[in-house]
Amino acid sequence: MRFRMAVVVGILAGTMALAQNVVKYQATINNVKYVYASAPPVARLKAGDILDTNTLDCFGNAIQKPGDTLSMSKGDNPLTGPFYVEGAEPGDTLAVKILDLHVDSNQGVGGFAPGFGAINPTNYTPMLTPPPPEKIWFYPIDHATNTATFQALDSKFSTRIPLHPFFGCIGVAPAGGEARSSIVPAEFGGNMDSPEASVGNTVYFPVNVAGGLLYMGDGHAAMGDGEIAGTAIEVPLHARVQVDVIKGHKISWPRFENDSAIMTVGAYRPLDDCLRIAFTELVSWIHQDYGLSELDAYELLSEVGRIHLNEMVDPNYVIVASIEKKYLPAKKR
Amino acid sequence: MRFRMAVVVGILAGTMALAQNVVKYQATINNVKYVYASAPPVARLKAGDILDTNTLDCFGNAIQKPGDTLSMSKGDNPLTGPFYVEGAEPGDTLAVKILDLHVDSNQGVGGFAPGFGAINPTNYTPMLTPPPPEKIWFYPIDHATNTATFQALDSKFSTRIPLHPFFGCIGVAPAGGEARSSIVPAEFGGNMDSPEASVGNTVYFPVNVAGGLLYMGDGHAAMGDGEIAGTAIEVPLHARVQVDVIKGHKISWPRFENDSAIMTVGAYRPLDDCLRIAFTELVSWIHQDYGLSELDAYELLSEVGRIHLNEMVDPNYVIVASIEKKYLPAKKR
Amino acid sequence: MRFRMAVVVGILAGTMALAQNVVKYQATINNVKYVYASAPPVARLKAGDILDTNTLDCFGNAIQKPGDTLSMSKGDNPLTGPFYVEGAEPGDTLAVKILDLHVDSNQGVGGFAPGFGAINPTNYTPMLTPPPPEKIWFYPIDHATNTATFQALDSKFSTRIPLHPFFGCIGVAPAGGEARSSIVPAEFGGNMDSPEASVGNTVYFPVNVAGGLLYMGDGHAAMGDGEIAGTAIEVPLHARVQVDVIKGHKISWPRFENDSAIMTVGAYRPLDDCLRIAFTELVSWIHQDYGLSELDAYELLSEVGRIHLNEMVDPNYVIVASIEKKYLPAKKR
Amino acid sequence: MRFRMAVVVGILAGTMALAQNVVKYQATINNVKYVYASAPPVARLKAGDILDTNTLDCFGNAIQKPGDTLSMSKGDNPLTGPFYVEGAEPGDTLAVKILDLHVDSNQGVGGFAPGFGAINPTNYTPMLTPPPPEKIWFYPIDHATNTATFQALDSKFSTRIPLHPFFGCIGVAPAGGEARSSIVPAEFGGNMDSPEASVGNTVYFPVNVAGGLLYMGDGHAAMGDGEIAGTAIEVPLHARVQVDVIKGHKISWPRFENDSAIMTVGAYRPLDDCLRIAFTELVSWIHQDYGLSELDAYELLSEVGRIHLNEMVDPNYVIVASIEKKYLPAKKR
Repeated sequence: MRFRMAVVVGILAGTMALAQNVVKYQATINNVKYVYASAPPVARLKAGDILDTNTLDCFGNAIQKPGDTLSMSKGDNPLTGPFYVEGAEPGDTLAVKILDLHVDSNQGVGGFAPGFGAINPTNYTPMLTPPPPEKIWFYPIDHATNTATFQALDSKFSTRIPLHPFFGCIGVAPAGGEARSSIVPAEFGGNMDSPEASVGNTVYFPVNVAGGLLYMGDGHAAMGDGEIAGTAIEVPLHARVQVDVIKGHKISWPRFENDSAIMTVGAYRPLDDCLRIAFTELVSWIHQDYGLSELDAYELLSEVGRIHLNEMVDPNYVIVASIEKKYLPAKKR
Repeated sequence: MRFRMAVVVGILAGTMALAQNVVKYQATINNVKYVYASAPPVARLKAGDILDTNTLDCFGNAIQKPGDTLSMSKGDNPLTGPFYVEGAEPGDTLAVKILDLHVDSNQGVGGFAPGFGAINPTNYTPMLTPPPPEKIWFYPIDHATNTATFQALDSKFSTRIPLHPFFGCIGVAPAGGEARSSIVPAEFGGNMDSPEASVGNTVYFPVNVAGGLLYMGDGHAAMGDGEIAGTAIEVPLHARVQVDVIKGHKISWPRFENDSAIMTVGAYRPLDDCLRIAFTELVSWIHQDYGLSELDAYELLSEVGRIHLNEMVDPNYVIVASIEKKYLPAKKR
Repeated sequence: MRFRMAVVVGILAGTMALAQNVVKYQATINNVKYVYASAPPVARLKAGDILDTNTLDCFGNAIQKPGDTLSMSKGDNPLTGPFYVEGAEPGDTLAVKILDLHVDSNQGVGGFAPGFGAINPTNYTPMLTPPPPEKIWFYPIDHATNTATFQALDSKFSTRIPLHPFFGCIGVAPAGGEARSSIVPAEFGGNMDSPEASVGNTVYFPVNVAGGLLYMGDGHAAMGDGEIAGTAIEVPLHARVQVDVIKGHKISWPRFENDSAIMTVGAYRPLDDCLRIAFTELVSWIHQDYGLSELDAYELLSEVGRIHLNEMVDPNYVIVASIEKKYLPAKKR
Repeated sequence: MRFRMAVVVGILAGTMALAQNVVKYQATINNVKYVYASAPPVARLKAGDILDTNTLDCFGNAIQKPGDTLSMSKGDNPLTGPFYVEGAEPGDTLAVKILDLHVDSNQGVGGFAPGFGAINPTNYTPMLTPPPPEKIWFYPIDHATNTATFQALDSKFSTRIPLHPFFGCIGVAPAGGEARSSIVPAEFGGNMDSPEASVGNTVYFPVNVAGGLLYMGDGHAAMGDGEIAGTAIEVPLHARVQVDVIKGHKISWPRFENDSAIMTVGAYRPLDDCLRIAFTELVSWIHQDYGLSELDAYELLSEVGRIHLNEMVDPNYVIVASIEKKYLPAKKR
């Protein structure tokens, strides 16, 4: 039964080898991590393996009912991992194809935390005026209709929001011996809060240490562009992803890809620089893999490029730039 | 004949009074303007009137064939107008509904100008390294398929791009006696490069001087998010818009609206502040017209808000924030 | 009578030719302007002439005693001028040497205005949290000791601050037919809030229209770096400046110079871009007038360059970059 | 022998208790570190102890003569340390008084590295245009006159620069289990490139882990504001510092103090946010320790505050805000 599933997946994925191994790993509050770093792996994967695992929500599943407070969380964005990918060496690229994501609870949580958010004073954009007070919203999840329900705190209004589950956090061990907090996105991925980290997409990371060391967490049931109040509809997830290694192919920033588009990530600060990173990366990708000159790629993106502003609330901000493949020449090789 | 057309339009528009007047105005290189300012109007419109006019492209239609250079343009973004709207007084809001936009040529132009663009040194983000040299791309327009064709300069590659015509420039006389260049977007609208300025949408402006003084120009046949190389597919347009005045309703920044969404504009610099302007405006709009508390609106936008990064190449940058009306309570009153 | 005064001034000024003409002009609340623009001049000056005039404070001298409010000001930064300088044509540089500045009152005013300031929500960095309320501080001026006294509003504490009078506003008509508010600094100078606009320094402006059209105002008795709460010690000034025209010498941004240093202005937004403008200008000045290669100038500035962050509260921010002449080769020619 | 030296030092230092212990530690290329992190200490200090040590230059002393290249460096900013300070616990403040700094070589090095600098494309402000090529300048140090000599590469020009030796890097282990590269400044201090880290000043750090774990490196013989080309006059240093622990006093960002001024550090990105961090910290310091209300402190800083823009080239930027104590009330308690 399980074998059959692996075969089917292999056939669908097309480019993968036939009999994929499935590695299962169960994350709990006792084995999660709070930094992306070089650390002992919790499991080892081979290229082509499917990882079947779960993630806690960004509060470590600690906030469950009205009256609970953000201080009950033992740490933000607890991470599942790290997973060691055999054969991944510095200078390679780690590919993670997201096969399945399911909301692993009947309720999501949105929390406004003082010091966090796009249009209130924050730790890194401080003001003399104090931020608004902490607030928590609970979102009942309806698995039948695949929706979450927003219920206003200050009125009777409610509205349904379609689910689009994705990893708020997905990343690898940083370069240069750094260890970075699970609330930070940067070159190693991390807390990108990218709705692109969802089923059907492959995310690429630079490999900075042997094994790459993949981490995941911070599941979102749905999120608006910019994640402006500081959180999405925060949920635990059940997840299946498939890993691969592209040997000898070095990238500087994370990338996404699916059948119809290529996408680059700029994860820094301020937004102006996020955009510059994402588009210089995208021009470079088009130039190297699709053969357009840099200026032709620049002009083409000026007419058909897309920008997705993922978030402006974390210690670094994230912009994803993309182009549909239908506008590109055939890939080289 | 004219009367009949006005009647038909009135019926289609639905919410407008029956017998709309149509005012025609022909823009040429000899009557265009290069600043948004208090200036003698070229025509007067009454609330409900339809303006039937045209705009030159951002180069004043001066660039027509290979070998032409950007220096042949007499000025950037020549503007049609200003149009005086009867009854519009400071403190009111001017509403401009875009009824029809047609590309008024068989060719669009994209031009890379040194000092302009998102990922090259510019006048306001200068570097010691010189920018790339001037380049011009011509885009044949196929009116039958409603597409423009990108043709690479450095290879044989070409690709078709669907048309989405919109005004790159639409705005009114600024407040405080200012006159602003036609390349600038700000509180008065102007060079917003917003694809939202297209058929089916209504754009709202603060009225700063008697008559509002509406200007339009810089037609785009299509544009990527960010307009990153500095231009869209630049074209002359034929346009029909309908004006209205909302008496005693004061707004601070331009807004867009259509049947399914409300949208706010942040037109300043850097992008971080564009986002802050757009979202504080959107929270305020939701709070005032739809009755959610500010924090409920903030949280709801964090889950379903949308961000459209229009451009990061003009002297100010532009972000449009929006929410679909389906997520909002019924409008008050 | 007039001739005698001119002779005396010439002798005092030392480096000027003997018989300078002195043009007197009295500014009042009835003849001030609120935009930098092409407007009819209030007086005409020849190169070498000395202008003897005065400026109102940034509130039009309207705030005089406890209980007065910012709403009593008829407009921010009323400007004295414009002054037409004979022979100044677009492409030239206007030089304004500041000979004398005296605080023209016995009291200065500091006012915190909601929406204005570096560490509170503002019009262009808005937040959901409201800014602190309006507050006004009065600073008695002691002309004998050349000090102003800060008196805390919420305690008995007071402290004396040495006077350093300067023009918060000094600028010319903008290019391209623009008219800019007197609260804005940009390429034309304007509300630079530069303590460098003080006695002993010469300020250079690009000439954009015939006559240049010089404006001054917004006197400051003293100011901290950044002008962070939004105002300096605001005072009316009595001023004497001498104008000159450098024919055929085109600059892009304002510059300052005195016997010991050259200084360039970056007046835009955000600060990162102010710095880039100021230093690309300074490298260029050193390269062109003092003969160092651009990279040598860049490296030298990395070791001895100075940065003065003038303000981060106006619609554009201002950074002045400088180098002492003692570190430079002899000027060419 | 050791006791006698400690006594002498204590007498010289004046304000310290008599019998200070001196701990000596010799840094070499074999024991330096490249991240600020929780790591085994190289030595332990008690409060009041004097540390007598040395630092390598930012290139690990690898660049010595024309023809040497930046690639010869084994890593940027090798750090001496970490030093464990007894009794320092999370929530305390570590005070480091800089007693002596001497340039430990006869030559300094300035290096322009592609991808690094304020007015060229960089890793985090990338552009399509390539940066200028690598260049290295050597600065002979004259210990008798206490000057370094800049020698232009592209001409015969040379000029002398007075020495002002300081630590480019000084910091502690970060919070939350992070490890940060030695090229990064942030809450833990680090690569602040602050000329304030010089003799006579005390620098305060938040203690994030037991012992604080002090690191130092990246000596500068002199540096211009902004360090705009990416390096100062880079030198090895011989250093003596004295450590102390302020129990139960928690700060969020590094601070400096000397007899005449208090200074706060904003070490993030962009500059706008550096300024906001530094001034909210300074207002808070004045309010808490000197008793002015927040708004009085804000206004006073608007008139007498000082801003030192340390650098805009590292992965985070650094601004130091300060006020002279003569403008403040007596310190409370």
